[in-house]
Amino acid sequence: MVINQTLVGIVEEAMRRHEIEQLLGARHGVSGIFNGEYVDLFRVPKERLEEIAVTPGAALGSVRHKPKEEDCRRIFEQFKKQGIRYFFYIGGDDSALAAHIINEMAKEEHYELRIFHVPKTIDNNLEENDHTPGFGSAARYVACAVRGDDLDNRSIPGIKVDVIMGRDAGWLTAASILARQTETDGPHLVYLPEVPFTIKQFQKDVKETYARYGRCLVAVSEGIRDADGKLWAQTAGEELYEALKDGQKELLGKPKKDAFGHFQLSGTGILADYLTGRIKDAVDAGRVRGDTFGYPQRSFTGMQSPADAREAREVGRDAVRYATVGDVDGSVTIKRVRGRKYEMYTDLVPLEAVAGKNREVPKEYISPGGNNIQESFFDYARPLVGDLPKTAVLDALLLSYASPLLTGDLPETSDND
Amino acid sequence: MVINQTLVGIVEEAMRRHEIEQLLGARHGVSGIFNGEYVDLFRVPKERLEEIAVTPGAALGSVRHKPKEEDCRRIFEQFKKQGIRYFFYIGGDDSALAAHIINEMAKEEHYELRIFHVPKTIDNNLEENDHTPGFGSAARYVACAVRGDDLDNRSIPGIKVDVIMGRDAGWLTAASILARQTETDGPHLVYLPEVPFTIKQFQKDVKETYARYGRCLVAVSEGIRDADGKLWAQTAGEELYEALKDGQKELLGKPKKDAFGHFQLSGTGILADYLTGRIKDAVDAGRVRGDTFGYPQRSFTGMQSPADAREAREVGRDAVRYATVGDVDGSVTIKRVRGRKYEMYTDLVPLEAVAGKNREVPKEYISPGGNNIQESFFDYARPLVGDLPKTAVLDALLLSYASPLLTGDLPETSDND
Repeated sequence: MVINQTLVGIVEEAMRRHEIEQLLGARHGVSGIFNGEYVDLFRVPKERLEEIAVTPGAALGSVRHKPKEEDCRRIFEQFKKQGIRYFFYIGGDDSALAAHIINEMAKEEHYELRIFHVPKTIDNNLEENDHTPGFGSAARYVACAVRGDDLDNRSIPGIKVDVIMGRDAGWLTAASILARQTETDGPHLVYLPEVPFTIKQFQKDVKETYARYGRCLVAVSEGIRDADGKLWAQTAGEELYEALKDGQKELLGKPKKDAFGHFQLSGTGILADYLTGRIKDAVDAGRVRGDTFGYPQRSFTGMQSPADAREAREVGRDAVRYATVGDVDGSVTIKRVRGRKYEMYTDLVPLEAVAGKNREVPKEYISPGGNNIQESFFDYARPLVGDLPKTAVLDALLLSYASPLLTGDLPETSDND
Repeated sequence: MVINQTLVGIVEEAMRRHEIEQLLGARHGVSGIFNGEYVDLFRVPKERLEEIAVTPGAALGSVRHKPKEEDCRRIFEQFKKQGIRYFFYIGGDDSALAAHIINEMAKEEHYELRIFHVPKTIDNNLEENDHTPGFGSAARYVACAVRGDDLDNRSIPGIKVDVIMGRDAGWLTAASILARQTETDGPHLVYLPEVPFTIKQFQKDVKETYARYGRCLVAVSEGIRDADGKLWAQTAGEELYEALKDGQKELLGKPKKDAFGHFQLSGTGILADYLTGRIKDAVDAGRVRGDTFGYPQRSFTGMQSPADAREAREVGRDAVRYATVGDVDGSVTIKRVRGRKYEMYTDLVPLEAVAGKNREVPKEYISPGGNNIQESFFDYARPLVGDLPKTAVLDALLLSYASPLLTGDLPETSDND
């Protein structure tokens, strides 16, 4: 949600540097470099830049392509041909890896290229970083959605499962605990990719929580795995596929694996539906629902957290500053100043320290049972997410006024009122 | 998202009326009346009331129970026993119906009861109302989510289907068009329950749109039906259930019908998954994704639209005003003042004018092809939703700078960066 802040940070700082004559933005990442499609960024009017900064989605376009060695070679050849001397690559660990490979090629040929990886991922899983741009805003979305969902589930008690983005690390799912304002608030259970997930334990956890609170809100990462490291989203997809009769296999489409062996996690509700199915198997609760939070987590308009917006701009500016101070390359990272008050600074680390690596949620933040997040995570995440809207409940004021007339169960309807 | 504004409106106005000695809030709607569980609302401190007003989810609790004749009888007996003389029932058309039935009982027995239905439904489907409290805020959520989703789908082009709440009327789905800021912005196709939906036409529409824009964003109501009025969500659930082998039927749970013959629409991703499956059958597009917006639509924290918050408070206050001016009963409704500038007022109409009725999106707002919404809907919905965050794109500034190096297809990965 803040990638364009970073882009604008790069543009405005580059404009101030006389040694940078032109700044080209590649359309759709490496695809734009391959196809020669660029935007001349110095020609974008200042007011337009500010509007773009607050716009979700990569304004230059993005691409789902992890560059291979030969792609990197092509990119490098293109740079030489066009006299490109600075390269800023905004993205996650895959982008850092490509930047690293191209950098090595340039060094080998003594071609002067200053290459910088600029961090951006809502998954917050980059090594060397305290946190990454994008995370604070996505976490803000998740916290606001889960807070409202818990209030909804308080209003009409039941079991609710929310599937949250994050293939390789559970940071965003962990941020769901920011929704808690009182002790009984959900999420009551939180499952991350960092802890092997079993259906049996899940059923037991949900059953106990539901018995305790009369309701249960569960935050689950889309990246939860079994003890062998296999994604449950994949298992769910495969089990469904296998369970379908021959000739009916394509009803929901075959579980899709991409060129890199990744199964599709987002843009399908299958994991949530599978998990609510397993709850229905084991728990006698009237109301069991699942939501897959999906793309709004990363693109909801107007959801930039103040710190995230500011820092995303800052890493862009600093990338240009680093690029112009000396013969350097590297990955811009965000570090946190020690102390009670939140402060950050950027640093430059070698590309290989970030390239292709995954930073998991440390064990210290995960409760011993592996099904919840420790309170200490609040101190970590709150400054990044910002203040959340305050909410209040009536519980403490409950007055049982009259004698019961009837205590029979009420049937359930399912409209949206 | 604004039901508590209405509750607080009732409380603050009732506090000012000496003839009202006590105001009880029934916990979980009619269930609280049956079980004698109430909150003494005059004892809630003023600051707490203001916090509750901005909190999503019914602070008193809600219930999914459409009261039958015998339930209404029990409620009425309870009122007589407790000396209750005013009854404010906040909700949709089912609530209005129950209010109407109880009102008739009171009249028959000459028991002086002033009974008021106070409108609240994000579905916006109440007769006699220009719009209903709840709609503006939910529509704001939908517009912000779809705007971001379109930008995301612009960044990585593909076909995206967003399933939006609204069982019987397509108002909320129609509001997705508020996401459009320029001519090429999505949603490019919009399907409401008001127009019979066929898979064949859907496939054709998506194929043509994708060919035209290179991307396609579709807003679909969860309540879309076929020519016989059967819900597609039900068909999707049944087809999946039928396609499963014996002994594997319970994998995702049986398609669930509640006591009122309603199939579960929310809290499952099945319709979106089914529709993306049908797109994959017919359109050769790399990236096809579906999201079911789910519960955040009605409960996202901090999403009250200014007009909606204000008006929700107002209908609560006015319900008490109407109740105390004379021997009246009825349903509080929102009317719009004619003219260019948006203004509203409340009116009181007979309960039976609203009870159990469904107000559809009028034909004049639906495009002739039945797959889109007319521009005139902007004038209707914009004042209710409020100003949306402005966004900007770079398209117009595209500069094709260099000659292409390579134009081969790039494989797709599916991480969240």
